[in-house]
Amino acid sequence: MSENMDRGSSQPAEAHMSTQSRSNPSDIPHMSDGQVWDQAFRNHSIHTWLMEMVLSLQQTVADHITQLATRHQQQDLVPEEQRHNQPIWGQEALLGRLMFQMVNYLQFGATGGQKFQPPCHSEDSKGDVRSREQAQVSKQIYKIFYQLTNFEDTSINYVLSNRGIETSALYHASFQDYNTYQGNKYHEDKNTLGFINLGTSENKLCTDLLTERLSRSDMNYIDDDLLQYSDWRGQPFLREEVAQFLTYYCKAPAPLDPENVVVLNGCSSVFSALAMVLCDPGEAFLVPTPTYSGFVFSTHLYAKVDLVPVNLESQVSDANTHPFQLTVDKLEQALFNAKLEGKKVRGLVLINPQNPLGHIYSQDSLMEYLEFAKKYSLHVIIDEIYMLSVFDESVTFRSVLSMESLPDPNKTHMIWGTSKDFGISGFRFGTLYTHNKEVALAMSSFGYLHGISGITQYKLHRLLQDREWIDNVYLPTNRSRLQEAHKFITNELKSSKIPFLSHGSGLYIWINLRKYLDPCTFEEELLLHRRFLDKKLILSCGKTFMCKEPGWFRLVFAATPLLLKHAMQRFYTVLVEQEQDWVVKQLEDAINQEVEDLSASDASQSYSREVILTSGLEGCCSDLGL
Amino acid sequence: MSENMDRGSSQPAEAHMSTQSRSNPSDIPHMSDGQVWDQAFRNHSIHTWLMEMVLSLQQTVADHITQLATRHQQQDLVPEEQRHNQPIWGQEALLGRLMFQMVNYLQFGATGGQKFQPPCHSEDSKGDVRSREQAQVSKQIYKIFYQLTNFEDTSINYVLSNRGIETSALYHASFQDYNTYQGNKYHEDKNTLGFINLGTSENKLCTDLLTERLSRSDMNYIDDDLLQYSDWRGQPFLREEVAQFLTYYCKAPAPLDPENVVVLNGCSSVFSALAMVLCDPGEAFLVPTPTYSGFVFSTHLYAKVDLVPVNLESQVSDANTHPFQLTVDKLEQALFNAKLEGKKVRGLVLINPQNPLGHIYSQDSLMEYLEFAKKYSLHVIIDEIYMLSVFDESVTFRSVLSMESLPDPNKTHMIWGTSKDFGISGFRFGTLYTHNKEVALAMSSFGYLHGISGITQYKLHRLLQDREWIDNVYLPTNRSRLQEAHKFITNELKSSKIPFLSHGSGLYIWINLRKYLDPCTFEEELLLHRRFLDKKLILSCGKTFMCKEPGWFRLVFAATPLLLKHAMQRFYTVLVEQEQDWVVKQLEDAINQEVEDLSASDASQSYSREVILTSGLEGCCSDLGL
Repeated sequence: MSENMDRGSSQPAEAHMSTQSRSNPSDIPHMSDGQVWDQAFRNHSIHTWLMEMVLSLQQTVADHITQLATRHQQQDLVPEEQRHNQPIWGQEALLGRLMFQMVNYLQFGATGGQKFQPPCHSEDSKGDVRSREQAQVSKQIYKIFYQLTNFEDTSINYVLSNRGIETSALYHASFQDYNTYQGNKYHEDKNTLGFINLGTSENKLCTDLLTERLSRSDMNYIDDDLLQYSDWRGQPFLREEVAQFLTYYCKAPAPLDPENVVVLNGCSSVFSALAMVLCDPGEAFLVPTPTYSGFVFSTHLYAKVDLVPVNLESQVSDANTHPFQLTVDKLEQALFNAKLEGKKVRGLVLINPQNPLGHIYSQDSLMEYLEFAKKYSLHVIIDEIYMLSVFDESVTFRSVLSMESLPDPNKTHMIWGTSKDFGISGFRFGTLYTHNKEVALAMSSFGYLHGISGITQYKLHRLLQDREWIDNVYLPTNRSRLQEAHKFITNELKSSKIPFLSHGSGLYIWINLRKYLDPCTFEEELLLHRRFLDKKLILSCGKTFMCKEPGWFRLVFAATPLLLKHAMQRFYTVLVEQEQDWVVKQLEDAINQEVEDLSASDASQSYSREVILTSGLEGCCSDLGL
Repeated sequence: MSENMDRGSSQPAEAHMSTQSRSNPSDIPHMSDGQVWDQAFRNHSIHTWLMEMVLSLQQTVADHITQLATRHQQQDLVPEEQRHNQPIWGQEALLGRLMFQMVNYLQFGATGGQKFQPPCHSEDSKGDVRSREQAQVSKQIYKIFYQLTNFEDTSINYVLSNRGIETSALYHASFQDYNTYQGNKYHEDKNTLGFINLGTSENKLCTDLLTERLSRSDMNYIDDDLLQYSDWRGQPFLREEVAQFLTYYCKAPAPLDPENVVVLNGCSSVFSALAMVLCDPGEAFLVPTPTYSGFVFSTHLYAKVDLVPVNLESQVSDANTHPFQLTVDKLEQALFNAKLEGKKVRGLVLINPQNPLGHIYSQDSLMEYLEFAKKYSLHVIIDEIYMLSVFDESVTFRSVLSMESLPDPNKTHMIWGTSKDFGISGFRFGTLYTHNKEVALAMSSFGYLHGISGITQYKLHRLLQDREWIDNVYLPTNRSRLQEAHKFITNELKSSKIPFLSHGSGLYIWINLRKYLDPCTFEEELLLHRRFLDKKLILSCGKTFMCKEPGWFRLVFAATPLLLKHAMQRFYTVLVEQEQDWVVKQLEDAINQEVEDLSASDASQSYSREVILTSGLEGCCSDLGL
């Protein structure tokens, strides 16, 4: 959508992302009323979504009016050129979409506003009625919108199913930044004004090595079997190779069995299929948060499985020996709370090395979590997609597949892929290793709709097979480049006194920008996120990781030095502007206060906010491993 | 599974597919009681499924006992060798699976036995309870089974969700032949005793051309964008190319818009996603039958959309000017019947050129179907995946995209892919072209879980771009090889007096083997199908295409002459055996009759069945374009 708009717009990205309408909170409806805000804090998730949509809607309307104004000038174009008018159509569609999204979310909020739950088509009959009512109202709004804009054919309003509307809204809300980036990527020669994406976790440090390896002649083999339909679990030669690869790199005590390997097009597909196979609709997984945001979409689209957060805290205390520590007590508490709410929890989802925290679970901790799961008959899904991205040599990672004796091997399922560790997310490869043959068999049903092309499977097999290249070329180079990029970013953050968490693994750093938020709310977090976007910098805000504390951002550092340097320039520009705006606002408030209260007696209230920030918040974050 | 079993079994494929236990109907429970059979005819779909499962169960038990008998001999193997014992485990799992499948199907049959509807997890509350009860019983049976076989850990019974069990059962029932083939493929040098698959629609005639073209240096380009995440609708360069390709080959009156193109990993994924986007659970599509069997799995796995058959008949009559003719009357009748049953029909699914019939819809007919759809506000999904596989030059195919004026462009959606027309099903590429931007936008949500690797997208783009090669090399060669293979098969069929339908397009012939069935039922069709399997020949029986007349089979002829020759040898062997068995059975019956009825007076009843067959049934099929 964004690509479409950018291409057709006379002021493409600047207009779309201008700071004018987004950086000033006074532009936003509902924000002036203290009581509404109080309620919003209690129910912040809904309001955050809403605000995001209002901001988008506002800008889209502005863009649309600009487009319409120039429409007449283009009407004498030849047909081929008129096709470039499509963006106007696209904007109209987007306006309609945004409006029915808002109605959906508003209605959802009115019914209770569960946190972290995007509106969904409930499976129970009660939810079903509600969801249909919502969709009816959405369609009405949608119809009115099209009538208002004199849209040529109002019957278009009824083309999508209810779940089609919901899925589309959820997708476009979840992937808005990503799609914006895809339409206008930064390039150091060709497009220096494009978006720099430090939001999506990709390793771009070794594309030279991968390009070279993948270009060698052994990769270009083709035979009939690769061109035809294959075993839906994945080509036998690839599953064989994956079993050997994981046996070696996970240090498995015995050779892993290719029959227990299932290969699908990406780890999200594997996760989605596992959710289908292990849970019925409405059942749930426990997920320590903050956690990878892709899980939300993957479990919702098809499986309709809930994610029950195990909320972790940054503050160190007696029960929390390090920030965001996961303990069995917290797991049990979350499980009991979920049961009290009538949820049927079927599994525990762990990411190791953790995303976005970069933690690595010690073997003892991991064993405790596995024992907890066994005690309550839960499956454990362990996503080890960053297992070879441990760049601090003092840190030891232990795969769950390395354990001599698993508490409940039949319910322990490990996911891995090449997207992160080899920086080839475009290959769409994810794999499951499960000790449970029933699960492997059931999972094979999904290859029919989530298969990978034969030639790609062949290349993956050759890549994973080349241990000499992996051990002597790729891994050492990747490690040293990750170290270097990590060092650059952490030095920058240290010199700016920005607290962060990092533990020598993963492609990202978890940074704390709460000192730039006033008040420290998810709404302010979102506004800061929009400010970064206005400067064409994408970071992922903590809210999308289901983090319960506002102010955290994930910054992906696995990029070239030049890109990181440009990114950090944009980053600082935003933070400086944010502070300046704050100072101006404080001064204005103080002047207004003085005018109102002629007997101003306490001048100490107008001191610089910067002093508060650096003296106050830094202290409270000093435990975060600066 | 079959691969697993074959590897470990002492008599792998022969044991698995021995004729002994399958060709004799007297081995099968329930078959001796006339009354049960009468009921079975009325409710044949359930019984056909059941019989399939009983046959599989019987053979699996036999294989398992053989395996167990040799187990002790293997217990002194070193651990590495013991891994080859896995097949025993696999067989135990399969036994359990087959038993709970049977219970599911039996229960399903008892509740009414709707035709063509595999048991599914209903979305309505009533269905929900029934489905849960079924699953409970399944789990009990499963538990008992594992206890009986002293399985080490009975807790394994509870690993899968209800839908996990159902999905797995449906998948393994749907893909049983396919998986058997994948585990033991015929190869003209390496494995002449393997399965010959004329059941799966693949074009294997031009793999030499494709291999050569795909091996050229322009195909091996790699850049960073191909290695990273991309636009989830498909890479822009590929969507651009698809739009141009379809504009040209579909003879579109105006250039097609790349923004209306969505690219996913296969046409089944496209179809599944369309079902999600256009229908809510329990809603339905009209589908003229016989039809492509993959639709059943694609609409069931995620979308839970019903397929309402528009049953077509082979018999020519006043209302049926040619066999299996589709008319608006039949569409309306099926629609009204569906509405009477409370079904909400959202669309009509057409395949053009038709699969399995090979029909091409005339432009007038197509327009009538489109007008019908508009009249009742139905979407039309047209699958044109065989559009370039029209090998009879006297036949004209017109794509729906070529029409100057569509009755309802906003609800007309066309599917195409390279699997059939270019014989590269292993590429996993399918595309949607829709005139409706809302549908295109909603469909883009599915790229996240149904994406294609970047390097494959690049190769596809190069392939589709090379019009010179396509027009001057590929298409003429493919056409002439299809003609030649078609001629070989049709000559064989004609000389064997086997009626068939074929209209110069597609990769298959729809043949009528009802003269080999006595009685002419779906159970006998299935038994004949198993006989082909026993001789390592896979054909698709009409039942899987939702054909309402027993006796039809689809035979895929797009294979090399040598393969076709071997396949036809196996084909004739089966038909001869089938006839011989029938003669023997008739003689036995006649003798028994004579023993019982000492006053046998009418010897004319013992005449040869062969005479009946050739004189009787041939006549009734003579209208089928021999």
